[in-house]
Amino acid sequence: MLIDDLNWRYATKKMDATKVVPEEKIASILEAIRLAPTSSGLQPYEVILVTNLEVRAQIQAAAWNQAQITEGSHLLVFAAWDDYTVERINTMFDLVNDVRGIKNEGWENYRQMLLSTYPQRGSEVNYHHAARQAYIGVGVALVAAAEAKVDATPMEGFDPPAIDKILGLNKRGLRSVVLMPLGYRKEEGDWLVNLKKVRRQTRDFITEVH
Amino acid sequence: MLIDDLNWRYATKKMDATKVVPEEKIASILEAIRLAPTSSGLQPYEVILVTNLEVRAQIQAAAWNQAQITEGSHLLVFAAWDDYTVERINTMFDLVNDVRGIKNEGWENYRQMLLSTYPQRGSEVNYHHAARQAYIGVGVALVAAAEAKVDATPMEGFDPPAIDKILGLNKRGLRSVVLMPLGYRKEEGDWLVNLKKVRRQTRDFITEVH
Repeated sequence: MLIDDLNWRYATKKMDATKVVPEEKIASILEAIRLAPTSSGLQPYEVILVTNLEVRAQIQAAAWNQAQITEGSHLLVFAAWDDYTVERINTMFDLVNDVRGIKNEGWENYRQMLLSTYPQRGSEVNYHHAARQAYIGVGVALVAAAEAKVDATPMEGFDPPAIDKILGLNKRGLRSVVLMPLGYRKEEGDWLVNLKKVRRQTRDFITEVH
Repeated sequence: MLIDDLNWRYATKKMDATKVVPEEKIASILEAIRLAPTSSGLQPYEVILVTNLEVRAQIQAAAWNQAQITEGSHLLVFAAWDDYTVERINTMFDLVNDVRGIKNEGWENYRQMLLSTYPQRGSEVNYHHAARQAYIGVGVALVAAAEAKVDATPMEGFDPPAIDKILGLNKRGLRSVVLMPLGYRKEEGDWLVNLKKVRRQTRDFITEVH
């Protein structure tokens, strides 16, 4: 159950460097992210899966030295498109037509509407919009990891240009937005593991308009 | 299983206006959102649950007249904080101390770090950051709805200032970012229900650095 998984998970502070997440669990987490919805179905981000320890050590050095980046066995880097271009929009609409084997006037009109608005509104607006979509993937990834009883720590505390450089993201038109080490909690040495999860009370978070 | 739930769900285009999602399912979806993680645990957004049909009709008129907003039985509005203020940051850090019953130097230093950086960086930067956190909640909500076999259609196609005005969000320091009608698909009349879900191939979405 999702609620149990959400209660089980926490932002693991100490991972056990001797344990490796099995490849089938990694594949299942990645597949969940791939299936996550995005605005207009454009999937305006990519995920970089880093296992190489030397590369992870470089990333760690640009991320306040957070230990989970190398203590975990895998690192996910969520990287948003730096812009919506005509080519990127067309690629996705063409893919939809290819997969469904149909061409539909409403869909083509929708394509033209995006083509006539998105590229023109500027890369900064587009990057922010793309980054939001990546966060849907982050939410789904956290649930997928928890369901597989894999620990995951989402991180924004890093130097994005430095990570972009390490991974060569700029030339691919990508900008890193979230890091997510995957691994297994090491309860000894994790100051957070036994502390209560804190969320605002429902009355302070949800308002009803009846 | 999450993967099955993600494959089951789709952005429902036509909902059955005669069906009502049971309150316990709504409560479970809302609880999943409440448990979703956010940056530094600040939960910088709120969720407005709208059942009132007249209010939903007003919102629909400011959202390209998308029918699901009134055909569904419930509407969630995700509304991000318009800024990180000293008061908001302190309220959350104080809540953590209250719930855990401890005060911890590392945590208090972290509070001071946020207090000395977030409010100063300007409301537009802070709003964008808060909005991203709301999208984690959107991802979790979509999974929660799918697990409960409730249809959910996330929407960005609306006039945020108009929705903010209808719901009085400005004076609460909130800005609407995503609408999500909840209901049940009406297969007759839904052009999307039988079309194949399209996502980029794994090789075009995931890169591995070994």
